[in-house]
Amino acid sequence: MDGSGLLVLEDDRRRAVDRVLDGFFGGAKVRAAAFGEAYVRLWDILEESTIGGKRFRPRMVSAVYDALGGTDIDAAAHVGAAFELLHTALVVHDDVIDGDHIRRGVPNVAGRYRDRAVDSGLSDRLAALAGTTAAIIAGDLALFSAHRLIDRTGLPQDVRLRLLDLMDDAVFASAAGELIDVDFSLSESIPHVDEILEMERAKTAVYSFETPLQAGAILAGADEGLVALLGAMGREVGIAFQVVDDILGVFGTEEQTGKTTSGDLREGKRTVLVAYAATRPEWARVASDFGDPDLDEAGAERIRAVLADTGALAFARDVARRHADRALELLSDPDVPDALREALRPVASAVLERVR
Amino acid sequence: MDGSGLLVLEDDRRRAVDRVLDGFFGGAKVRAAAFGEAYVRLWDILEESTIGGKRFRPRMVSAVYDALGGTDIDAAAHVGAAFELLHTALVVHDDVIDGDHIRRGVPNVAGRYRDRAVDSGLSDRLAALAGTTAAIIAGDLALFSAHRLIDRTGLPQDVRLRLLDLMDDAVFASAAGELIDVDFSLSESIPHVDEILEMERAKTAVYSFETPLQAGAILAGADEGLVALLGAMGREVGIAFQVVDDILGVFGTEEQTGKTTSGDLREGKRTVLVAYAATRPEWARVASDFGDPDLDEAGAERIRAVLADTGALAFARDVARRHADRALELLSDPDVPDALREALRPVASAVLERVR
Repeated sequence: MDGSGLLVLEDDRRRAVDRVLDGFFGGAKVRAAAFGEAYVRLWDILEESTIGGKRFRPRMVSAVYDALGGTDIDAAAHVGAAFELLHTALVVHDDVIDGDHIRRGVPNVAGRYRDRAVDSGLSDRLAALAGTTAAIIAGDLALFSAHRLIDRTGLPQDVRLRLLDLMDDAVFASAAGELIDVDFSLSESIPHVDEILEMERAKTAVYSFETPLQAGAILAGADEGLVALLGAMGREVGIAFQVVDDILGVFGTEEQTGKTTSGDLREGKRTVLVAYAATRPEWARVASDFGDPDLDEAGAERIRAVLADTGALAFARDVARRHADRALELLSDPDVPDALREALRPVASAVLERVR
Repeated sequence: MDGSGLLVLEDDRRRAVDRVLDGFFGGAKVRAAAFGEAYVRLWDILEESTIGGKRFRPRMVSAVYDALGGTDIDAAAHVGAAFELLHTALVVHDDVIDGDHIRRGVPNVAGRYRDRAVDSGLSDRLAALAGTTAAIIAGDLALFSAHRLIDRTGLPQDVRLRLLDLMDDAVFASAAGELIDVDFSLSESIPHVDEILEMERAKTAVYSFETPLQAGAILAGADEGLVALLGAMGREVGIAFQVVDDILGVFGTEEQTGKTTSGDLREGKRTVLVAYAATRPEWARVASDFGDPDLDEAGAERIRAVLADTGALAFARDVARRHADRALELLSDPDVPDALREALRPVASAVLERVR
């Protein structure tokens, strides 16, 4: 998901998160050396796959924590870094499941191991196995390590347990979303719009918005009511973001998305756009193009035209807008402190900007 | 690894571990229902893959804990169950990496999803993807959940942190071992005996012997010296077990191992047997048969003959014996309480029985 321009993570907050991750990976590499160079290299590549990201989830944690008056930058950085590692784990395994070897234009963990294996003369099949193996292992390490960063903060027992429960919720939901997503892609039929929204919420919104926002609040000692409200707000804005992402994945530019704009159509990715259009008779004109791995740009344009003509594009924009509006509405609750409202309004507004 | 007859987990201890796992999976399935039936089914299948096992790692925890006078059966059961879940996670992902769809004669997680997808009419490629996806997700859930069982025990902070450090060591080492194992299998050359032993120690001995034994000791409040000694003892006996496993994988019977006795040869599995034999000129006679996916029983017999004639079999037996003897030697340290020595001696003796 593209969150640029959404919320700027203050320099010192970003540095604090980077410091936590540096320390974590530094320690891991020292330990890894006892098992040989190949293992140190795996940790290097895992670390590199966390560098240069927008630190989207740490931003969510800090935005809430700071707005609620939290002052322990290091604790917030640990929690943010934990969500960043969780994100890395999920992305690395998601790429294995999707068979992707590129992310944001550069080879991912599996891609780097595969390319190196090809260079060393292995067959395509064995090189792919080398890539998959490294990525499964790297994702496991990131996943298992995520909770440990929360443990290193020396937080009071009750706060620690609630944060771990949140991370558990995040992993639990994203696993469900991933399973459902793949089920969708394996089925010939196109799911209903609501099913797509539920899947996208589970797969991404929970761990990217709902739980990081809630974690910031719990860390700042907020009451249960506010934590619940932030969960609801995160859910709405998270769904809105995913729908915008799906729109940009088909109608955006490569600069906006960092990926080809026909990839989603070629893969037959189930989105709100497609779920809506597939209920219209016009869909029959492009149904066989959709999900065709050999789809060319002309074919992609034909599908885009149907998505626009059937009103699917307008519908999807409207869905995103409604969810973002609902997020803003939740923020206008009088129980939300002003500073928090000001801090989070840009998150929802950014969605509205993007679907304008 | 086959540990039958090794140490019997007392009925009440086993029931306590089962109760913890029942509670864990029961709770997970209630939560999963909110995401739909497909997700409940994944949890069901994950749970089924933990049932019927020998509870080998919980046995190690309990053996030490009980012998050191520990009385909190529930706490020991939680720690044992955590190692059991970790084992499940590692096995499920290991099977994905190896492309295996059968474990102990029945379809594993990937196999069950693949078979079902085939039945529903999917192509072989998509059915395999369905299997791999489910297994990656299921393994992630088991892995992430393992540490949570330790958190649920309400242990004092210092004990909890040391147990989590141990589990971290276990995950860290097994990931290294898995990576090295696959590296070995991708290389034409046969590694040195010591490299094989290091890999097997990292991949399996640490999480199956070293850390469960240490966890039982930490839980019982043992001093650092004894914890370190148990780690060393677990390492020796764990390596011995793996070597015996490799021997039985080639020279054992299907009843002993629950798998075909030519599978390891067909896969070209790098073992101490092969590492030793490959340094001898006789190896050239069978080098091209080794790792041949179409290897027949006559070919397997030819390899077995070379392994026996070169002295590789005798050598491997001797390696196992030496490591088991070293484990017994460590147990004879006067600082080891008598009850603990009596409890663990059978673990090492069982290895000696098996290589007799």
